[in-house]
Formats: sequence, C-alpha cells, structure tokens
Amino acid sequence: MTDNKTPTVTERLITDVQNLLTVPLSDDLRNMALDCVLDWFGIAIAGANEPLVHKLIAEAQDQGGNPEVTVLWHGVRTSPMFAALINGSAGDALDFADSNFAMRGHTTPSVVGCSLAMAEYTKASGLDFLKAIIAGVESECRVGTLMQPGYLRKGFHPTGTTAPFGCAGAASYLLKLDIPRTAYAMGIVGTQAAGLLASGGTMSKPFHSGKAAMNGLLAAKLARRDFISRPDAIEAPEGFLETHATNRNVPGMEECIGRFLIFGTRFKSHAACQLTHSTIENVLQFRNTDHVKAEDVEHIDVQVPPQFLSVCNIQEPQTGLQGKFSLRVTASMALLGDDTMDIGAYTAERVTRPELVRLRDKVTVTGNPELSGGIGVTTVLLKDGRKLTRSSDAYEPIGSLALQREMVTKKFHALLDPILGKAAADTLRQSILTIDKLDSVGPLLAQSAKAKA
Amino acid sequence: MTDNKTPTVTERLITDVQNLLTVPLSDDLRNMALDCVLDWFGIAIAGANEPLVHKLIAEAQDQGGNPEVTVLWHGVRTSPMFAALINGSAGDALDFADSNFAMRGHTTPSVVGCSLAMAEYTKASGLDFLKAIIAGVESECRVGTLMQPGYLRKGFHPTGTTAPFGCAGAASYLLKLDIPRTAYAMGIVGTQAAGLLASGGTMSKPFHSGKAAMNGLLAAKLARRDFISRPDAIEAPEGFLETHATNRNVPGMEECIGRFLIFGTRFKSHAACQLTHSTIENVLQFRNTDHVKAEDVEHIDVQVPPQFLSVCNIQEPQTGLQGKFSLRVTASMALLGDDTMDIGAYTAERVTRPELVRLRDKVTVTGNPELSGGIGVTTVLLKDGRKLTRSSDAYEPIGSLALQREMVTKKFHALLDPILGKAAADTLRQSILTIDKLDSVGPLLAQSAKAKA
Repeated sequence: MTDNKTPTVTERLITDVQNLLTVPLSDDLRNMALDCVLDWFGIAIAGANEPLVHKLIAEAQDQGGNPEVTVLWHGVRTSPMFAALINGSAGDALDFADSNFAMRGHTTPSVVGCSLAMAEYTKASGLDFLKAIIAGVESECRVGTLMQPGYLRKGFHPTGTTAPFGCAGAASYLLKLDIPRTAYAMGIVGTQAAGLLASGGTMSKPFHSGKAAMNGLLAAKLARRDFISRPDAIEAPEGFLETHATNRNVPGMEECIGRFLIFGTRFKSHAACQLTHSTIENVLQFRNTDHVKAEDVEHIDVQVPPQFLSVCNIQEPQTGLQGKFSLRVTASMALLGDDTMDIGAYTAERVTRPELVRLRDKVTVTGNPELSGGIGVTTVLLKDGRKLTRSSDAYEPIGSLALQREMVTKKFHALLDPILGKAAADTLRQSILTIDKLDSVGPLLAQSAKAKA
Repeated sequence: MTDNKTPTVTERLITDVQNLLTVPLSDDLRNMALDCVLDWFGIAIAGANEPLVHKLIAEAQDQGGNPEVTVLWHGVRTSPMFAALINGSAGDALDFADSNFAMRGHTTPSVVGCSLAMAEYTKASGLDFLKAIIAGVESECRVGTLMQPGYLRKGFHPTGTTAPFGCAGAASYLLKLDIPRTAYAMGIVGTQAAGLLASGGTMSKPFHSGKAAMNGLLAAKLARRDFISRPDAIEAPEGFLETHATNRNVPGMEECIGRFLIFGTRFKSHAACQLTHSTIENVLQFRNTDHVKAEDVEHIDVQVPPQFLSVCNIQEPQTGLQGKFSLRVTASMALLGDDTMDIGAYTAERVTRPELVRLRDKVTVTGNPELSGGIGVTTVLLKDGRKLTRSSDAYEPIGSLALQREMVTKKFHALLDPILGKAAADTLRQSILTIDKLDSVGPLLAQSAKAKA
C-alpha cells in the first residue's frame, strides 16, 4: 500500500493540513474561523429544539454514556460520541448551515459539532478548538478537491460522505495524532462514509451531519488505540474515490497545498436550500436595484444546473419545509419582500398564500446543462415588455470579511435573541469572538445553555 | 414517495418477511437457523480475544453506556449499541463467518451480534431471538436480490453495505415495529450503509460487521421513536440502489416472496477467505478422491471469476492473514494435507515453509470471465502427463442439513474446546440447540462467559 519513500495522497493531505497550523493564525484566518463558529452556534441553538434533536437525546439517555460532554443548549451530559451526534444533527436541523464549493456540502455543522464535543472531552483550549475547526474544514475540502469537477456519484450527499473526513481531521487534531494515526482515522471514517440524497426533507438528512461528527470522533479515538485501517483508503483501489466519486483529481488537491480553503465557505443568508440562493439573490437584485414589483411581472424564467432539479424544484409546496426546497416559491418570496433570512418565514400558511401562489405560477424552472457549480441565471419578463437578466453563484463567498461578519452577526441575533434574550446572546457572541483567548470551550457551553426552569 | 394503495418495494419486502414468521417454524427452518447461531458462537467466542475486539471494548468503556447488555465472552456490560458493535466485530474477526449468495457477504456476524444485544435488551424469549435472526437474514438477502446479478458497484463490501438492512430487520422484529416504522428503520440504516473492500486485511474489515450491527440496532430504536426517514430509501431515486448497485432487479425480489433464503447460507469449513473455498474443495477432491500427491504435480491451474483476483490473489504471502487471502497458498495447503478448517493452520511459519513455497510456485491463478458467482475450476497437470479438472461453487450450501450440522458442530468444538473446555462447550452447544425453548438468551451469555480469574 505504501512504501517508505513516497507519501500517499492521504499522507500528503494530512501533512499539508498539519503544516498550515504550525504558524500563528493570521487575522483574516482567525476571523473567518470565528465566523464559522458564530454562524454554527446561532443555527445549532435555534435547531436544538427540533423534534429530531429531542429524539436523539432520548435515545442517548436510553443507551447511556459517561457524562463527560455537554449537549448544546439542553445541558444534558453524555458520552463524547452522543454529544457529537446530537450537536452535529442540531447544527443542520434547520437547513441553514454553510457550504463550501470545495466539498459541495454543509461544511461546519458536523465539524464544529464534533470539535465542540472533542474539545470538552480533551479539555482543549479555545485556541485549539478553533484550530481543530480549521483542520477539519481543510481536511474535508481537500478530500473534496480530489473529486472535482465531477464530484460524487449521483445520489450521494456530500454532508454525509465528505464531511466525515473533516470531523476525523478535527478530532485527530485535538488528540494530537501523528500522521500515520491520522491516516488510520481517515481510513476508519472513510469506510463508514455514507449518506443518501434521498433522505432530503426527512430527519435523516440532518442525521448525516450528526453521524459524520460521531463517526469522525470515534475514528480518531480508535486510531489513537492503533485500530488499524487502510491508511490510503481514500485513494486506494476499491477505496473511497473508486466507490463514491465520478473522477479522481490528485493534481487538483496538489494545487491546494498551503492554501486555506476555509475562505471559500459561504454562510447562508436565506433559510432555504443552498441551491435556491443564487435565484433568490437574482430576484433580490430585481427588487432592490431594478425596482421590479410583483404586479409588473409577466413571467420569471429560472435557469439552474440540471442537478439542482432533483433537490429544490418542488412545484407546489404545501409545507414550510417543502417551500425551502422550491425554487418557484423562494423566488416569489424574495420578490414579495418576505424576509428569506427568517426561519419563521417558511410556514405552510405563507408558502401557500394566494398572493404568493399567483406569482409562483408565473415562474418556470429549467435545468440548463451549460450552467455548473452554484450558478443560477434568472430572467424576468415584465408586462411592459422589458426583459431583465441577472446571474449569481450560490457558492461564492461574500468576499469582504467585514460584510460577512455583519451578515453572520445579524443572523446570529435574529436566531438567538428570541431564544436566549438579547443580553445573553450578546454575551455569548462576545465569548465566541474571543474563544481563542479562553482556556476552554466551557464558557460557550454555559452561556448557550437554556435557562433552568 | 408512496401513495396509500400501492406498497413500495421496501414495504413489500418487509411484509413478506413478517408473513414468513407468522407460522410456526418448520423443523428444517429451525435447524437451519440454529446452525447459524451455533456457527456464530464458535467463531465469535474464538474471535473475542483478537486485538481489535479489546480496542473496541476499551473504547466502549471510555465512552460509557448503561450496563444493560453483555459483551460476549468478556462479560463486560455496556449499552446495546456498543454490545452490538463489539459482538458484531468479534463475529467477523477471524474471517471465518458464513455467506449467502443472495447477499454475497457475511450473512450472520452482524445479524446475530445485533440480535443477541437486542434480545437481551428487550428481554426477548429464545424463540424470538431465533426468529429475529431469520427476519434479519431474510431482510438482507432480499435487499441482495434487488441487486442481482450485477450486485454492488466495485469496491463496496456487502458485509458493510447489505448486511445492515438485515440488522435493522432483526432489531425491528424484536421491537415489534409495524411496517411503516420498519420502513423508517430501513431508511435510517440505508442512509448509513457503508464499507470499502479496500479495508480488507485490516481491523476495519470486521468493523463493518460491528457497525452494521450497531447502526441497525440504532436505526430500529430511532424508528420506534418516529425518527423519520425516507421509507423507500432503498429503491427511491438517489437512494441505496442508485448509489450502490449496478442494476435494479425488483422482479428478482418478487420471485423470492414466501421463500426462505436462509437455506442458501453456506458455513465456512475453511478458515480462509470465502473466495478460496471452491479452489480448496477442488484440490481436496484431487487429494482424497484422485489420490494426487504434491510430489506428482507439474502445475496447478486455478481459474476463478475475475473479481476474485483483487480479493484473494496474494502471490507470496508472508503472514498467516495474507495466506488466508492467497489462492496459491490455500490450494497448496489443501494438497499438503494441512487442516484448512483449523484457524491455527494459518501462521507465517506454515505459509512460508519451503515445502509449501515449492508447491505454491507451481500454481498459477487466472481470472476467467466465463466464470461467475463462487465458481472455481481447478486443473492439475501431473508429471506423468495426466490432467485432472474439478469444479465447485463456494456459495453452494452443503445441501444436507444433517451433514451441515455435523460440520458446524465439528467446527464449533474445534474452536471452543480449547477456550471453554470440552464440557462447557458441550453445555453451551446444547443450550444453543434448544434456545427456542429458553425464556431468554441469558443462559447462552452465561455459558459462553470466560472463566473468572
């Protein structure tokens, strides 16, 4: 499998990630990673009361575990594995998590969920928690680059199949594993990599992030025990790439050596499916820049890459969740001035109201094979005969870290002020933004715990 | 996804398995299932002292769990999930477990490991334990028939990807789940289905059986909590078949309605890779029927299906484990009179001894695209110019239940007499063979526990 001279692809990947973290974090890198944490806490706490999270907590209590790690918000203490499972699932329960085109799935719900559990378990400093998240994101994104541009075979969900490598990378970082043992962790997690797109719209979809976190944590802990796996299971014959990817792009990964792919992370500013975002942004431009009004519209033509259609092209949604996966509905909401960042905007009542249905029925959606990545092209035909076209990319990061912080902060407070109260949300935000100065993640957990009855 | 009138493929599968178990077990079925249990206990107890099992127990203790379920042989008590993980892994630690061509992987290491943990947890009767195993084997084999004849895409390990459906089926049976909740369990386990052939020869390979057992148990328990999954995740677009299988054969599954596929289970009578068995059987025929001796051999030509070559064609094994995955070595062992049923026969010393190496170097192995399934065709050219050819099928069951019981019993005692002592092994065997008369699985666990220090 390996000889002593040439490092394997997996070993090069691990070495690169470890090297990235041997120097002090730049201000930009620190801020980018802090935005990941800030965004995660807002979404995960807001998601922590979803029924699926309660069911996982009940199951964790029934199975039991050494009460060493805290479940976010609920404050229940359980095993590191179950805490990772529950926190990871909570982080994706609202379909509001970030993404990164390098790995094409939700980037941090599992990685932060896993790192938080593992940081408490290992009594890591706040700085090491932050660095573990960077290690995790860089690991999963590098595995992603190995599959670009074709990526996964149809039906595999990157959040379930690519993100686990990030969780194993983050957990291995916190356990200070050497390169051979980190390679075992990648092999153990790779042989568990799973997740079907068919699970979309059910509780089993956020469960992908939970299982990624749990499996990654377990993989690193087993690797520390010298639980042997194929150390090149990613690239080996009959390994992860052969079973899951449509192509194999080692040069693509090599090009990333020394680069921080975490800067490619895009935070969701709309509480709907990521693949609706380019269309929503186009429509917001029509509304805010071109001053288009719903009553002026004759027809809206939505063009997206063909692979979007199986994910977010529900024609006539009846529930709020279905609305999040409908290009026709989210485009209409944006034009009607609904606050698409507000998770409360996606209710059955609002996505079926007559005003919206009228506009929705003027929207047609087409899969355009000339479009790729996260690009959406939207054209509005107005009753006065004018035709306007806008294009944007759902995977493109905001670009300005200052604007990004502003957006993530707004989202954090929109999600948490109603749950924690403004003052407590402020305190938590300030702790998160100085986490690298704290001795542990303890304050974050204490400050995000629900008020005692 | 489903309407109220036409049952989905998954629902038909579940209904069929439930119907099979509404009538009393026939004597043949009871005996077949008892052979599965007998074979499993011998292998799993003998495997329980492998390093990988100790590492999993250490991890389970570090994570903790309500001590409700017993770990085989070790007697440690832990959570149902961890007991399933450990027992399932022990059941496959020696590469000595059974297989069934309908699912093409190890059939019972995970299913019995899961059922044993779940039966203790639910305080099930011995009869329900036995019926759960039948439910499990029938479920996984039916999922297997949906992929025949092409089966899984290259690189997926059926023991990791198909067997979990059996574990979910067994655990759902013990929880008395209805059809919709069993379908959720199938969806939850399907979205976790994983396992790379690249893991072969490492600790992560038996881990596939352990994770199948653990994931199946968790899936059924979550399904009981109405943790929602896609109930047709097996056959749905972007579901299990689309991601994992090379074809989709619903008529193949329909043909099995009302049939007990468990009778297709083949128990290993050689402690080497399943895919070496047809060749070993051919060589044993040369030795025992044709009276061929090693010194008479000029050349041995081994022909197998081409897909065998990546699994068991190690040319010059240096370790005992490598020897188990070498057609050249196992064929030579058989002709030299080594006891290929004996796990102690596969040592570095024995697989590299000069007498064996001389014979091994007269063996050539060829992938023959005209061969399929488990068929091997072996031709020996003798120094006197004679040429003898034999053919057999590694997946074909013994056929006679009486001969099968004899073989499984011999194997059970060969494995367990040295560990438990002859008298204790006899007691355990007698309990296993009357498990359907016992109130619980407790006696099996007590009688298989290691002697206290």
